[in-house]
Amino acid sequence: MNFDEFNKFRSEMNEKILSNGTLNTKRFFNLDGAVYKEGEIPSKYKELMGLVASMVLRCEGCIDYHIGQCIEFGVTDKEFFEAFDIALIVGGSIVIPHLREAVKYLETIRNNNKKNV
Amino acid sequence: MNFDEFNKFRSEMNEKILSNGTLNTKRFFNLDGAVYKEGEIPSKYKELMGLVASMVLRCEGCIDYHIGQCIEFGVTDKEFFEAFDIALIVGGSIVIPHLREAVKYLETIRNNNKKNV
Amino acid sequence: MNFDEFNKFRSEMNEKILSNGTLNTKRFFNLDGAVYKEGEIPSKYKELMGLVASMVLRCEGCIDYHIGQCIEFGVTDKEFFEAFDIALIVGGSIVIPHLREAVKYLETIRNNNKKNV
Amino acid sequence: MNFDEFNKFRSEMNEKILSNGTLNTKRFFNLDGAVYKEGEIPSKYKELMGLVASMVLRCEGCIDYHIGQCIEFGVTDKEFFEAFDIALIVGGSIVIPHLREAVKYLETIRNNNKKNV
Amino acid sequence: MNFDEFNKFRSEMNEKILSNGTLNTKRFFNLDGAVYKEGEIPSKYKELMGLVASMVLRCEGCIDYHIGQCIEFGVTDKEFFEAFDIALIVGGSIVIPHLREAVKYLETIRNNNKKNV
Amino acid sequence: MNFDEFNKFRSEMNEKILSNGTLNTKRFFNLDGAVYKEGEIPSKYKELMGLVASMVLRCEGCIDYHIGQCIEFGVTDKEFFEAFDIALIVGGSIVIPHLREAVKYLETIRNNNKKNV
Repeated sequence: MNFDEFNKFRSEMNEKILSNGTLNTKRFFNLDGAVYKEGEIPSKYKELMGLVASMVLRCEGCIDYHIGQCIEFGVTDKEFFEAFDIALIVGGSIVIPHLREAVKYLETIRNNNKKNV
Repeated sequence: MNFDEFNKFRSEMNEKILSNGTLNTKRFFNLDGAVYKEGEIPSKYKELMGLVASMVLRCEGCIDYHIGQCIEFGVTDKEFFEAFDIALIVGGSIVIPHLREAVKYLETIRNNNKKNV
Repeated sequence: MNFDEFNKFRSEMNEKILSNGTLNTKRFFNLDGAVYKEGEIPSKYKELMGLVASMVLRCEGCIDYHIGQCIEFGVTDKEFFEAFDIALIVGGSIVIPHLREAVKYLETIRNNNKKNV
Repeated sequence: MNFDEFNKFRSEMNEKILSNGTLNTKRFFNLDGAVYKEGEIPSKYKELMGLVASMVLRCEGCIDYHIGQCIEFGVTDKEFFEAFDIALIVGGSIVIPHLREAVKYLETIRNNNKKNV
Repeated sequence: MNFDEFNKFRSEMNEKILSNGTLNTKRFFNLDGAVYKEGEIPSKYKELMGLVASMVLRCEGCIDYHIGQCIEFGVTDKEFFEAFDIALIVGGSIVIPHLREAVKYLETIRNNNKKNV
Repeated sequence: MNFDEFNKFRSEMNEKILSNGTLNTKRFFNLDGAVYKEGEIPSKYKELMGLVASMVLRCEGCIDYHIGQCIEFGVTDKEFFEAFDIALIVGGSIVIPHLREAVKYLETIRNNNKKNV
């Protein structure tokens, strides 16, 4: 699946989950959005925390989602690489394949955004 | 790989593993079948336990396998979503990408089964 | 810590978490109770699913909690050992140290309950 | 082990590891310190990222270490609980036993610091 | 629990598991012994492989067991530290608390063995 | 992605990571190579240790990398299957999907090497 296909799949499936799931499913999805909201810790750093957590747990879909969110909050490439380093050291070399995907995904979004300017 | 290709790959590889593997490999594969057999706990619930365990460990191939088995034992969509909720709460938001795949896979099998009636 | 000390620590800490935590913390704790409620799948089997998930993720506190809940729902020793087998096969030999603790904990509760009859 | 015993054990063992380990061991330990240094991302948020990563991976010793570091960088209780929420939602209910320990540990350090004023 | 208490607990519990468990439980325990037997790969290196796997999965009881076995097969301290390095790099800094325990445990056995000479 | 595409992606991304990453990123990548170097433990067994660690952590890219390295050091199919057994028993049935990929990958390299003779 390419970038756009993945996003389409994601939206379609989330819709199905929320329409077929229980009230508990919906509540969990709400919570999943709520914890990254601006608070005592700015959203930008909450998203970076979500990104590092996703990398050490090696959750591909989660990594891509948080990279997208981080870009919305203005995270620079230098900041991304400092966050990647924390994930690498905490999680070890098994994070490397996900680092490759993350760098590819970051590049793809940056290029998409340039085209749309 | 689509649904049928995956099943073909799975069978071919299992055959190669069992013909090239050691006696211990074969014994482990036997055990892997044996623990889901009808017992004090009905197979249907054992398969649901295997499904939830596979979801929290985020093992794609295992999730698909147990969804297939659960359907054989008559698990309904309502039961599936209650099981998915347990996996979500125990395992957290990193389970969500696998939930999407699970819902897609469930839909695919339900549709295949309708065609074959 | 022994059995009673652990339960006291658990209650005290949960109280502190719920009084100092955010609204999201409270909501998550509520959800954590809600997904095991009687539904299309009986609570007894939901607790067994929670137990197996906790064993393969090797979460000591969670294993003890679900063993206690399972006993409330009348799970027998034979059923426990069938569930333990699923956890062992899915999660591998790294589950064994937790299996030892689980068997010890189960024995402790069974003995406590006898005394209180 | 209590708070002071743990810190003593930690220092003694780190010393043994660094004197008996290889050059690679030492290099890894250096890197483990280096990635949290002030940079494009402030150290305070890097430590919070390390804390969330440690919680979702459920590494007790690491959680305690990063709580201590976060306190050095002035993290408030409100900020801690927002970070705990991210760990809870990303990592699921298996994080709860570690949340209990984290809240206990946080309380212990806050009390120790008051005494030393 | 100290060294001897732990070994006693371990033996007692294994006995209970094997006498109360199912045939599948026993078979799994047999397999767990069988895969480390001398073969194309010498037992010494199989035990080191088991040790590294236990370290990256952060299974305390398993680490101690394999350290004991490695010592039986003559693994030297230099070899241990090279194996520890692989675990550290593959598994990341979350392995460090287990490395401390491993080094402590190794020291304890070496000292016990000296006394018994 | 097929075999050659994957290797190309891997090299390109590693290059990007090393040119955009920090000094810490580069140091970690160096360490990741250094720990498998010939030492008190021969490289062949270090690579097998890396392979088993990668299998129990279920890191696809890592498994493929270490299979390639093991072949360079002359690991035979019999040795591979003994190592696979350790990974299966330590990590459980969730390793099976990765075992299928590993056996496929091993076959692909063996066939490529025959063609190039």
